[in-house]
Amino acid sequence: MRILIDKKGKKYLTREEDLHTNLGYIKKEDIQTSSNGQIIKTHMGYEFTVIKPNLNDYIELMERKCSIILPKDIGIIVANTSLGCGQRVVEAGTGSGATALYFANIVGSTGGVYSYELREDFAEIARKNISEFGQENVEVKCKDINDGIDESEVDLIFLDLPKPWDVVESAAKSLKIAGYLAAYNPYIEQVFTLHKVLKKFGFSNLKSVECILREIEVKAKGTRPKTRMVGHTGYLTFARFL
Amino acid sequence: MRILIDKKGKKYLTREEDLHTNLGYIKKEDIQTSSNGQIIKTHMGYEFTVIKPNLNDYIELMERKCSIILPKDIGIIVANTSLGCGQRVVEAGTGSGATALYFANIVGSTGGVYSYELREDFAEIARKNISEFGQENVEVKCKDINDGIDESEVDLIFLDLPKPWDVVESAAKSLKIAGYLAAYNPYIEQVFTLHKVLKKFGFSNLKSVECILREIEVKAKGTRPKTRMVGHTGYLTFARFL
Amino acid sequence: MRILIDKKGKKYLTREEDLHTNLGYIKKEDIQTSSNGQIIKTHMGYEFTVIKPNLNDYIELMERKCSIILPKDIGIIVANTSLGCGQRVVEAGTGSGATALYFANIVGSTGGVYSYELREDFAEIARKNISEFGQENVEVKCKDINDGIDESEVDLIFLDLPKPWDVVESAAKSLKIAGYLAAYNPYIEQVFTLHKVLKKFGFSNLKSVECILREIEVKAKGTRPKTRMVGHTGYLTFARFL
Amino acid sequence: MRILIDKKGKKYLTREEDLHTNLGYIKKEDIQTSSNGQIIKTHMGYEFTVIKPNLNDYIELMERKCSIILPKDIGIIVANTSLGCGQRVVEAGTGSGATALYFANIVGSTGGVYSYELREDFAEIARKNISEFGQENVEVKCKDINDGIDESEVDLIFLDLPKPWDVVESAAKSLKIAGYLAAYNPYIEQVFTLHKVLKKFGFSNLKSVECILREIEVKAKGTRPKTRMVGHTGYLTFARFL
Repeated sequence: MRILIDKKGKKYLTREEDLHTNLGYIKKEDIQTSSNGQIIKTHMGYEFTVIKPNLNDYIELMERKCSIILPKDIGIIVANTSLGCGQRVVEAGTGSGATALYFANIVGSTGGVYSYELREDFAEIARKNISEFGQENVEVKCKDINDGIDESEVDLIFLDLPKPWDVVESAAKSLKIAGYLAAYNPYIEQVFTLHKVLKKFGFSNLKSVECILREIEVKAKGTRPKTRMVGHTGYLTFARFL
Repeated sequence: MRILIDKKGKKYLTREEDLHTNLGYIKKEDIQTSSNGQIIKTHMGYEFTVIKPNLNDYIELMERKCSIILPKDIGIIVANTSLGCGQRVVEAGTGSGATALYFANIVGSTGGVYSYELREDFAEIARKNISEFGQENVEVKCKDINDGIDESEVDLIFLDLPKPWDVVESAAKSLKIAGYLAAYNPYIEQVFTLHKVLKKFGFSNLKSVECILREIEVKAKGTRPKTRMVGHTGYLTFARFL
Repeated sequence: MRILIDKKGKKYLTREEDLHTNLGYIKKEDIQTSSNGQIIKTHMGYEFTVIKPNLNDYIELMERKCSIILPKDIGIIVANTSLGCGQRVVEAGTGSGATALYFANIVGSTGGVYSYELREDFAEIARKNISEFGQENVEVKCKDINDGIDESEVDLIFLDLPKPWDVVESAAKSLKIAGYLAAYNPYIEQVFTLHKVLKKFGFSNLKSVECILREIEVKAKGTRPKTRMVGHTGYLTFARFL
Repeated sequence: MRILIDKKGKKYLTREEDLHTNLGYIKKEDIQTSSNGQIIKTHMGYEFTVIKPNLNDYIELMERKCSIILPKDIGIIVANTSLGCGQRVVEAGTGSGATALYFANIVGSTGGVYSYELREDFAEIARKNISEFGQENVEVKCKDINDGIDESEVDLIFLDLPKPWDVVESAAKSLKIAGYLAAYNPYIEQVFTLHKVLKKFGFSNLKSVECILREIEVKAKGTRPKTRMVGHTGYLTFARFL
């Protein structure tokens, strides 16, 4: 798997196949024998840079059946829970596997990600994506997390579900002492209910935030925040089993 | 090293010593023989929970001589550069070592963090903090990064310096193909200059953002964003050596 | 009534009295005979500029017994309801009279502001403030607005009350066709309930917003949003009787 | 001039003419003889409410040749300068006349708005809009404000120009003592330069802000800030001639 990038920055993901673009084609042999960062030309003479995709490249181009959590929110989760190499993460639902890939990239082969997904079609795509990117430390389970969490001594349980509160009681059993529960919810009503249930089951250090990311345009004619921006994705709630 | 947490959530870092608080004292023997999550009482009968500190606990309580980069900004850096287990990071300046600790926690023992700090006193504190937390994959160098970067094939170079543009040329030599340069700068003028120099030295995918984090108060009398918030920390600029 | 401003921009409100500051004193005769913008000196030789206060100057310095609505929120109310000269406004509660003064300054002598306040002590201070500033088009009523609104054919009803929904039914009777109800509420739960009741009583064009105002520091060493900012004051809800 | 509003809230501006919509037509006689707030039916039986447009209705539907300043920013200007009934405002450039209309609506017939516009075509549209709305206290001048400001004893000078600093010196001559200069600028570089020139010509109380307005969605399935929002319009700079 390689990414080819044209002069304008457009990226093309190639597998074992020729690349056909409106700037011409490149044969798969030429792609496969190219080194990382090499520039190769289409039959029409346009230059493309070949790179091995990193995680963000891959997530940008992989197959998706549902919306994914944005890097800004993933980043806040990682930093607030001090997620690191070697940790164990449970998450639900898997969706297209983007969040699992982010977590897996961080916890590495000495850690693990256990991802619950109700829908078989989503689980299938997620498994394909994770395997294609070459991440071996993720287990996608087509299973309702409300039926119980199989793992124990978990560092982080991340819930991207409509009713995360239903999982709080079993989360308390699976988390390490002082481990984190994190949840992503679009609606403020979900935040209220989750807080109430988290308190009931003895979680502490409850905190809910939203991250507003402003992109800055730096151009010759001047510098300014972008005209349009994402106004809201979801609230992030954190609690510690403590 | 243990953290003791009182009923109100206040944390106390203890090393090889008795804990003295205005709720009474606890002997070091009692602390050292306690298990993770155990509740022990002061001589006045107040309960404290003993835990092994995670990275966020430790950074909150460790010695600092200068302000540190907030988790919100660390998170955005990690997610935007897809930092993960096994990667190699160069950073400057070290400060109290908080950023180095975050990066080291993620890259793990198969990766490494090389942190440049001009001031000997800051380097000393950072080394002490990093060593006390038990992170072995960080090398703090008391050295001007403007004199050259010793490392090569680096995944991420992170610059928290007043003039990050001075390092761009040598960053280009040390980064892997498609590796990231990230910079943290309080002033917008620094962002302009950095963009100009990044373009000059062939970096691509330039992006500058700022992260506004709003904390939500969820109380019995109602829910609302907090009255006071951090208005600005720094702009984060990202570029790829590509 | 005059304002004296020292070289550092500090403002002093003077009535029929000498001004005593730690930069020296100025006699009331010298203040009273000075023209707008004139510079006069204290007995210690420090210069003060004398001006007739405008509304913002006055509100900054007047007596207050409770927090006031910030200009940012007043501005959003004015612009969203196209408040203008000659209009009639009902508001509750009066508080210290700041909002009434803003509205009165805009509607002028051909319009009017009718302000309801439950607490006699607040009403007294508000009346004193409004009268001292010389605004003659405000009537402060020490009366519960829940007992009914005396005015009819009103352009705008503004509610800064814990339970604005209790006033919606009578607001519908007092407003002009297509007139506005606006409410200021700190908690999001208040916004839900208000929307529900507004719909029940036939209001349309419901809209709730919050205004985040970022102040920019422009200094020799660089430009940046201020480090600390107001994170939240209140949600503003608008509806039209239509 | 009337506005007809269908059941979905869509507004139609009618002058001396029949209304034709895809819900049927209404004859001009029926519109002209209807009272404010009356419901009339199209020939197909659909109901429309007839109202006399307020300023926001009119600006929404009037002819425009260029983008207009949003109510959020107009509101911040009004509140920060305590603009009120009877004041005198100079502005440049006029554009389609929206800002002039907002100011005129506030200052009323005892005040006045003097609006400078370089382009004859813009001035024409603005005059037509202002006249159609019936505002008689605005003078649109097709004239370069850099050639001098004709008015004196002005309360507010508002500049929506690429180089507002060129007008600062003459603004100082036209403003009342303690009057306001306000400027709207998309780029931060414009803010630096303006501050420098404002200081040079003796203005004080310099302040630059940006207003981020978040709209809240209140729906049956939950409450949340809107997914997409305006990220940036312009920086607002205020200074006082003092």
